[in-house]
Amino acid sequence: MKQNRRRFLKTVALATTGGGLLASLPATARIPGLFNVNRLGNLLRMSLSFRPYELQLRHVFTVASYSRKTTPDVQVEINYDGFTGYGEASMPPYLGESADSVMRFLQKVDLGQFNDPFQLDDILAYVDDIMPGNTAAKASIDIALHDLTGKMLNMPWYRIWGLNKEKTPSTTFTIGIDKPGVVREKTLEAADLYNVLKVKVGLDNDKEMIETIRAVTSLPIAVDANQGWKDRQYALDMIHWLKEKGVVMVEQPMPKEQLDDIAWITQQSPLPIFADESLQRLKEIPSLKGAFSGINIKLMKCTGMREAWKMMTLARALDMKVMIGCMTETSCAISAASQLSPGVDFADLDGHLLISNDLFKGIDVIEGKITLNDLPGIGVVKR
Amino acid sequence: MKQNRRRFLKTVALATTGGGLLASLPATARIPGLFNVNRLGNLLRMSLSFRPYELQLRHVFTVASYSRKTTPDVQVEINYDGFTGYGEASMPPYLGESADSVMRFLQKVDLGQFNDPFQLDDILAYVDDIMPGNTAAKASIDIALHDLTGKMLNMPWYRIWGLNKEKTPSTTFTIGIDKPGVVREKTLEAADLYNVLKVKVGLDNDKEMIETIRAVTSLPIAVDANQGWKDRQYALDMIHWLKEKGVVMVEQPMPKEQLDDIAWITQQSPLPIFADESLQRLKEIPSLKGAFSGINIKLMKCTGMREAWKMMTLARALDMKVMIGCMTETSCAISAASQLSPGVDFADLDGHLLISNDLFKGIDVIEGKITLNDLPGIGVVKR
Repeated sequence: MKQNRRRFLKTVALATTGGGLLASLPATARIPGLFNVNRLGNLLRMSLSFRPYELQLRHVFTVASYSRKTTPDVQVEINYDGFTGYGEASMPPYLGESADSVMRFLQKVDLGQFNDPFQLDDILAYVDDIMPGNTAAKASIDIALHDLTGKMLNMPWYRIWGLNKEKTPSTTFTIGIDKPGVVREKTLEAADLYNVLKVKVGLDNDKEMIETIRAVTSLPIAVDANQGWKDRQYALDMIHWLKEKGVVMVEQPMPKEQLDDIAWITQQSPLPIFADESLQRLKEIPSLKGAFSGINIKLMKCTGMREAWKMMTLARALDMKVMIGCMTETSCAISAASQLSPGVDFADLDGHLLISNDLFKGIDVIEGKITLNDLPGIGVVKR
Repeated sequence: MKQNRRRFLKTVALATTGGGLLASLPATARIPGLFNVNRLGNLLRMSLSFRPYELQLRHVFTVASYSRKTTPDVQVEINYDGFTGYGEASMPPYLGESADSVMRFLQKVDLGQFNDPFQLDDILAYVDDIMPGNTAAKASIDIALHDLTGKMLNMPWYRIWGLNKEKTPSTTFTIGIDKPGVVREKTLEAADLYNVLKVKVGLDNDKEMIETIRAVTSLPIAVDANQGWKDRQYALDMIHWLKEKGVVMVEQPMPKEQLDDIAWITQQSPLPIFADESLQRLKEIPSLKGAFSGINIKLMKCTGMREAWKMMTLARALDMKVMIGCMTETSCAISAASQLSPGVDFADLDGHLLISNDLFKGIDVIEGKITLNDLPGIGVVKR
């Protein structure tokens, strides 16, 4: 008898967790009546809103494969109980998402089924399962939820994560590929504001670019080959040459399909080699151990802050280095990524500095160093 | 000139992060004057206190190698800004720590040098570096800091971690090795209160124990061999037999030194095999991938909640199962461990039920299921 009662109660408990039996009922019918009831007797609900926003680049942006002067972007808000969480999806065209695809994805997201924005595990698993890919769209929800929950806790996420804001690194600042005179001028300008420069290599003019920069500054340089080198011996020779020129790290020396060649380079390289195109998400990291010295985490590729935090944890457990990167983004996504930055080896968080129509005020870059503020959540206010 | 000023400021910034130059000055001289100043103009400081507390076991406790009826324990408090965080170290004698060793360790801990209890990364790295080992002593600090910071946020840690409290598992309840009549009686008693039983095996009477339990209940059983089987073929045969008897998982079938034999068992086992004695801390997990199906996380072995959370994250990324276990402990450490439990596959959190002098009220076990409360921090109040 007691046994039967216990079995019955267990069945009820299972049903009220939201799985199985009741999942096909309309949303209003399956809401438990116990929590988050406001004074009018209605359940508090998260509401999601979003709009496209084209980012205007200050300068034409050139990497190994193309040039452009705008980046499509979608701005997101999640409102709950008087709090607003801001999020953002930035879609550089080579990653396959667009403002349209992000908005189509966000239209499918029903946050109304969740009563507690702190249930990040459940909410983000649900969002991730809506469709594969769409990582920037997913990141926009993740960032907005982190901003929202951080504001509800009245605490910035770096502090919730137990990090020390004094330990933020300097950000690299990218010197775009251009004619030597322009490169020289931009380098002089940047050298007074930043502590580490970044150069896209993997083109025919790699040595010319580095020599031009070295003619005007001795600042350390990070290079990103963007899969541009096709021969491993050539790549290794270049890396040795780059080390002589004061380069301190190399991203993605060869195409991601050539993982064995990259591992060969990493084993012999005098500089740490970081995975960028070879890596999107958490689950891929174990297979990169040995092939790369470290990973570049980007919120728009890994679905956001929660997975990024897990990626940092995993990489550290595997004795891999960690850098955090970005797309061209407003201070919203940049400030979100910066919350993690006290835990990384390198940060490449200059995306907001490359646009002329930033919507937010967030982190500062002071004397070249990422400088977190004490604002709650991701640490941004609308301009 | 500007360049020189920037260099100078960079040097100052470096110095104020607490590394290098200033580390040899007395603690009072190197505290920055910018944050956490209370109304009297004094810096807020964490203060640590602790005392030994012997846990009284309800029943004599027998495993493969010994019996006992008490467990040494140390109770810890960290006070800060009117908040009190509770922590605990429990020291089953076979793990090498004692009340004396824990108190000697805690006497070396100077939390006064930190101004912000949220700097868990820095504080726990400092504590971990004081001496190797001493994992229970370290866990007591970690638990107290989590309780303190959770109280400052006014939120339980399961929620800060983004977990759903409805997803807590049932806890296993251990049926001690004893004469068949006693086992039968204890099983009948437990079967009405719990959903999964646990049995220590690895002795000569394994089959008799299981048969005795099966004669009175069909509840699923977890077994812990405590390294007790010495021959891999014997172990695998036993596991097949146990599966027929409704056993659902096996802990540590063979001695940790025999990792290859354990891997051989895991590859052929019809039941998941969990690492217990083979595992202490985060960094050891990658080497266990393949040899075990999952890991048993225990706060007293892994230095506490922060590392436990990282271990769960790492194991999931490696597609390993996760269980959370305990020592005989008060509701303090059990409730701390329970904060993680919505994320695990199995929980063995019955340690507080085995003692007669629990100091705290914390989690409940209702209908066999771990039931988290909404209290902030680790969710305990003094009885």
